[in-house]
Amino acid sequence: MILNLARRAHNHNWALDPIVRSLLDTDFYKLLMLQYIWKHFRGVQVTFSVVNRNSTVRLAEQIDIEQLRAQLDHVRSLSFKRSELVWLAGNTFYGVRGIFEPAFLEWLEHHFRLPDYLLDVVDGQVRLEFAGEWTQVTMWEIYALSILSEMKTRYGLRDLSELELDILYARAKTRLWEKIERMRSVEGLRIADFGTRRRHSFLWQEYVVDAMQSTLGERFTGTSNTYLAYKHDMEAIGTNAHELPMALAAMANNEEELLQSQYKVLGLWQQTYGGALLMLLPDTYGSTQFFRHAPDWVAAWTGLRIDSKEPLVAGEEYIGWLKERGQDPARKRLIASDGLDVEEILTLHHRFHGRIRFSSGWGTLLTNDFRDCHPRGEHELEPLGLICKLQTVNGRPAVKLSDNYQKATGPAEEIARYRQVFGVEGVEDVPVLV
Amino acid sequence: MILNLARRAHNHNWALDPIVRSLLDTDFYKLLMLQYIWKHFRGVQVTFSVVNRNSTVRLAEQIDIEQLRAQLDHVRSLSFKRSELVWLAGNTFYGVRGIFEPAFLEWLEHHFRLPDYLLDVVDGQVRLEFAGEWTQVTMWEIYALSILSEMKTRYGLRDLSELELDILYARAKTRLWEKIERMRSVEGLRIADFGTRRRHSFLWQEYVVDAMQSTLGERFTGTSNTYLAYKHDMEAIGTNAHELPMALAAMANNEEELLQSQYKVLGLWQQTYGGALLMLLPDTYGSTQFFRHAPDWVAAWTGLRIDSKEPLVAGEEYIGWLKERGQDPARKRLIASDGLDVEEILTLHHRFHGRIRFSSGWGTLLTNDFRDCHPRGEHELEPLGLICKLQTVNGRPAVKLSDNYQKATGPAEEIARYRQVFGVEGVEDVPVLV
Repeated sequence: MILNLARRAHNHNWALDPIVRSLLDTDFYKLLMLQYIWKHFRGVQVTFSVVNRNSTVRLAEQIDIEQLRAQLDHVRSLSFKRSELVWLAGNTFYGVRGIFEPAFLEWLEHHFRLPDYLLDVVDGQVRLEFAGEWTQVTMWEIYALSILSEMKTRYGLRDLSELELDILYARAKTRLWEKIERMRSVEGLRIADFGTRRRHSFLWQEYVVDAMQSTLGERFTGTSNTYLAYKHDMEAIGTNAHELPMALAAMANNEEELLQSQYKVLGLWQQTYGGALLMLLPDTYGSTQFFRHAPDWVAAWTGLRIDSKEPLVAGEEYIGWLKERGQDPARKRLIASDGLDVEEILTLHHRFHGRIRFSSGWGTLLTNDFRDCHPRGEHELEPLGLICKLQTVNGRPAVKLSDNYQKATGPAEEIARYRQVFGVEGVEDVPVLV
Repeated sequence: MILNLARRAHNHNWALDPIVRSLLDTDFYKLLMLQYIWKHFRGVQVTFSVVNRNSTVRLAEQIDIEQLRAQLDHVRSLSFKRSELVWLAGNTFYGVRGIFEPAFLEWLEHHFRLPDYLLDVVDGQVRLEFAGEWTQVTMWEIYALSILSEMKTRYGLRDLSELELDILYARAKTRLWEKIERMRSVEGLRIADFGTRRRHSFLWQEYVVDAMQSTLGERFTGTSNTYLAYKHDMEAIGTNAHELPMALAAMANNEEELLQSQYKVLGLWQQTYGGALLMLLPDTYGSTQFFRHAPDWVAAWTGLRIDSKEPLVAGEEYIGWLKERGQDPARKRLIASDGLDVEEILTLHHRFHGRIRFSSGWGTLLTNDFRDCHPRGEHELEPLGLICKLQTVNGRPAVKLSDNYQKATGPAEEIARYRQVFGVEGVEDVPVLV
């Protein structure tokens, strides 16, 4: 048996096993939003920061800060490759070719670069912040999250023997196959991978997505991960996120502008994109008020993504509203994307299939479900509730209310002001004040 | 990434992926028995043949006869390597060094060779027979069985994609780990691998044995596979099999010699080996009559292996007999080895541990448990009930009665004659004849 001596020697001297291998290794919606920001909001200054929602987990004790720095620096050293840009220019996304303008791709090639970061440990937590032009800072979100997620994975695996690692992945693959078996014959099911940011690792996400593609046929509609879509000829999935309405709200100069900012963001989007990309994300300041105040052209959009609201309720609310506004739900899209696993996916599919074009964006429990897979029964591989969120826009605080009272983010006095403007109609867990 | 171009090109031109890679890839007891036969029975002529006990499975439709021929020819081309013989000479087996005589090892190196085989397809079954000197033919048993078993595996895997194969092994590893987890903390448990002959494949057996060794500590006592024991520095386990009493019985010239042959075989064994190798296998012609007729020196042997009798019953029978003969069971060994899986192993351990030095020889359900692992839910990987058994000795038929009436083998009229001599006391499933 002839060894590959070169590889063996190379492995002895490995400086870094990079987590992010390409700037395409991000959610596709970040690129769509980036072009939108580049078109309409050049010069806007923002800050983003990483927040660990599981604050009882002292993340800085599981992540070596110098290694984290090396990974972040590695991403900063990347640029979009010519072949990647050619693909962005020439590929069809959501049925449309040329979705990215030549001038934008030109800018991406020559002017885009990730700005520096602020990294520190405060009270056992990793403090990681980004500041600068929105057109640059925004891209840190997914790179930062997937790096932190995979570094936590590597920490969780550090003491396992080769056999134990093998068993760990055997169990995770067995689990994955059970899920695939439950889905592979369900008529009309539609699922996409949305699991980049909290994935176990890049290679595991690639394994999972490849397994779905080769077994689920048209039931698997694609991946939010642009690099995997590029590498494996899949559909890139995703349109927009809360970041946009939050930024526009922060830039509003009075109460009326604030209330209207949630539609202004859509108006600009519609100027930029069309067709299948016209997906509503109504929950930034509460879905119920969003529907009630929305002009009719909003109801004409292609579909809606549910995030913070219980999806059975949110789906019915959307269908009801469409009928009210004279729209045919059967021609609209509905995407659920928050904390799904097979069970929820099948329940939602059975509820909505045939009434609306329903699909599921499957995230963390697709790409990081290692529950009970640890060969020693430990729990170090549980995914973390890490987010990387917009904090300020041109020096003003960014706020999200969401459909769940507990999930509001931003400074308390600003949250209060936003609640004055948007109300709390249809929001869950509102405290009762007599 | 630099490819190993030599390996890649070599893989294109692979003539044979051999199943048996070394003549040590056999049960250790075959080597002990071989030396015994070589010492006491040189010149005896025997025939062995392969029998498929699952006669409804048309084995010849799942095995390519030319490929089988290539595998058998490959084993015939092997000889014992110098380093293997040095190990047999110098290694400690059951606590004794020099268990194999220099003259025997000399013979093994220069005179041992596997005789030709007769291969044919009859009625959808593989007809595979061996004839010649007992000192040569006997060694075919395990090579033939493990080749047939792995060829059937390869047939079962032929249409699976790389992903499906990966899932198959992930499931089998998950299953294995569940078993290991049930055993790893059980006090005083003792288990050995006895799974060579019906293994899924050589590499899978190696994986399983390696996993047991690295996780079970002293609970894993070793493997019956001599090659794996050699390669991984494990204890080689096993002493003797039915082949010996069957041959001696066949050579008996009258009824009294026949009855006594079951002890004569032991007398010669005791002349050849001692200590821990003095393991009784009492069920060839029925355990109950074996105990009743046995001279006291037989009760002084080190232990007993249970095969065809229900092990809870057989163990109690042995313990009762030992007490009757003034022996202390706590100083004796008891090994169960027939069709065990975790459940039976734990039940037997709890029953016998502390009363007698109990251990389990775990076979097919250790090295070939792929039940429900097939990614398409098919059943092609179920292990076959293949045996390769002694048919004739110097032209006379060989007979086994066993502790189960249904399991008797040999020509009907010979079975009847043997039953006259040995009786059917304590034998299960004896038909009631009014």
